[in-house]
Amino acid sequence: MAPVASGRIIAVDAMGGDNGASAVVAAAVLAFKAELPLDKLVLVGQQDVLTPLVNAAGLSGEPRLEIVHASEVIGMDEKPKTSYMKKKDSSMARTIGLLKDGRVNAAVSCGNTGSLVFHATLMLRLLDGITKPAIATVIPTKTSYFVLIDSGANPVAKAENLMHNAILGSWYAKVVLGLKSPRVGLLSIGTEEGKGNDLTRESHELLKAINGTINYIGMVEGLQLFEGNGVDVVVCDGFVGNIVLKTCEGLAKMVKHFLEDRLRATPVRLVGAALSRGAFKEMKQRMNPDQYGGAPLLGLNGNLLKAHGSASSAALFSAIRVATDLVTHDLNSQVVIDVARANSTGREVALKQVEQSRPEPVNSGA
Amino acid sequence: MAPVASGRIIAVDAMGGDNGASAVVAAAVLAFKAELPLDKLVLVGQQDVLTPLVNAAGLSGEPRLEIVHASEVIGMDEKPKTSYMKKKDSSMARTIGLLKDGRVNAAVSCGNTGSLVFHATLMLRLLDGITKPAIATVIPTKTSYFVLIDSGANPVAKAENLMHNAILGSWYAKVVLGLKSPRVGLLSIGTEEGKGNDLTRESHELLKAINGTINYIGMVEGLQLFEGNGVDVVVCDGFVGNIVLKTCEGLAKMVKHFLEDRLRATPVRLVGAALSRGAFKEMKQRMNPDQYGGAPLLGLNGNLLKAHGSASSAALFSAIRVATDLVTHDLNSQVVIDVARANSTGREVALKQVEQSRPEPVNSGA
Repeated sequence: MAPVASGRIIAVDAMGGDNGASAVVAAAVLAFKAELPLDKLVLVGQQDVLTPLVNAAGLSGEPRLEIVHASEVIGMDEKPKTSYMKKKDSSMARTIGLLKDGRVNAAVSCGNTGSLVFHATLMLRLLDGITKPAIATVIPTKTSYFVLIDSGANPVAKAENLMHNAILGSWYAKVVLGLKSPRVGLLSIGTEEGKGNDLTRESHELLKAINGTINYIGMVEGLQLFEGNGVDVVVCDGFVGNIVLKTCEGLAKMVKHFLEDRLRATPVRLVGAALSRGAFKEMKQRMNPDQYGGAPLLGLNGNLLKAHGSASSAALFSAIRVATDLVTHDLNSQVVIDVARANSTGREVALKQVEQSRPEPVNSGA
Repeated sequence: MAPVASGRIIAVDAMGGDNGASAVVAAAVLAFKAELPLDKLVLVGQQDVLTPLVNAAGLSGEPRLEIVHASEVIGMDEKPKTSYMKKKDSSMARTIGLLKDGRVNAAVSCGNTGSLVFHATLMLRLLDGITKPAIATVIPTKTSYFVLIDSGANPVAKAENLMHNAILGSWYAKVVLGLKSPRVGLLSIGTEEGKGNDLTRESHELLKAINGTINYIGMVEGLQLFEGNGVDVVVCDGFVGNIVLKTCEGLAKMVKHFLEDRLRATPVRLVGAALSRGAFKEMKQRMNPDQYGGAPLLGLNGNLLKAHGSASSAALFSAIRVATDLVTHDLNSQVVIDVARANSTGREVALKQVEQSRPEPVNSGA
């Protein structure tokens, strides 16, 4: 299960994103400058596109850089299954192939989510005991950060999947946020027992049962997420998580544009904005999605990160940094132990529920 | 179905909110001052609490004000069924009772959502053809507003319910936003067909089939909601809608507090903030939830608005204003016609799908 390659070798799918290979090459420059604990960076994509960019960036003599050729590119709107069946030499398939074959320790792609989940699930296979992968995204609050899991890999989830998300999210919060005992909350529409839908009610029972393996604090509401210091891991299915993530992105953009626009409306306001520039800068830094530019696709045999389709070089650099973190902490071997324990507890909970719902025999015989 | 009371008589449950009866009485003062088209305002609650407040507000001689006594109050955390069974003389039950008996034309309550939905569904009954109620909330974008429906009444919805939400939301957008042909979008995690979950896929088919009755523009993502000028009615189930609403509230609060805090960090920034005060004021106005402080519980025989549990007097005043709008436009009689037509189209779609999924007989006989 552990990659056979020694050291820290990271592969980057250099073709899938909206900003193309140049953003990836610029991220490579940043990664070498920052002296990340990186033995090698492998850029995967069309050789004739990548070589000139690498040369222009002054990386032609860089011994830690390697290019692996892949002739095809998967577009942002291609269907997962079709892209998998028809484009065997895509940069995405080649990148995940390197991870599968143990030639790299982690991989980053900003290709389309559906195709990435499809390729990864079929090529890398899921970790023992896990039945669906999940994407974990780090989101800023007023004073800290929380991990949203699943933010879009598995839109049709069962309670068992949410239990696994809780474990995966906990371990990821330990690695990426440096927390000892991350507080796990289940996203719902009220904090009282019985609120929510069938999925949250069932998941709540499972999460209570595995408390100890994780630090479960109960159901949380949307209002609590951004207060900071309340919850570190927010568990939900990939449909709700993706909607939450994108709605928040949309709202944050709206607020930013509205304020920029209104601050430019009069000369006096412009002066005021210039004087208070520092506050806006701090706001921008806190809300900066590039800081954790890669969201891992967890639950798989291999460290795979998904970067945003429109990831900048700074965001791709962060993704490479988080990839090295995942390799250092060997997340998956710890996840597998917790999942095995939780699955056994989960089966007991399910059995008990079946027994409780079975009617008592009225006449049990003589 | 239409209320028998003539004119515009609005009842307000004066006890259920966090801010208590004083916020309701203050809202009454605002309503009379603003000269809303209002024949009478009925405050429902404990006489010994309300009378002193009404006197102190200088409303004791107001001929358009009436107090109806109700001895009990339903708390914010009480369970819907228990509160309904045990507190027959609650201000909520009495308020809805007035609406049911045709003694008022519309009613407003800031009591707890679950109890309100339970009371209203049992006491008022649903409109012909509708099987679940839905809450519609108006949300600001950069340049306009959209209606989110359902924002929390029905967390476990079927495709049929979402079809009804689309119709209810359309009519509400016509009344409250003054739009001629509101663009209806289905909230999902991608705009391509096939994306989402079973509920969105089924609902998408139904909404396409009733295009014409509504102006359906297809699936929309969270990122699009706040762009403005894209979608006017956003359809989803009450679980997703409530999470979206509360998460957005949480994020907006976080941004506000963070900026306020950072603008106070240095004297120079404080001066800057004072100079650009106008921009923040405009932002605050746009994001002000009080502007549409009442969210109607649609799909019922009667105009019932839910105000936020922590509604201010300004928000309660808006709710009373929106209540008069609903009475003026007689929303429900138009909804019933569209729902009947949509249900018949919906049945055809469902039949066709069953036929398509039935295998052709191999041997159809001699």
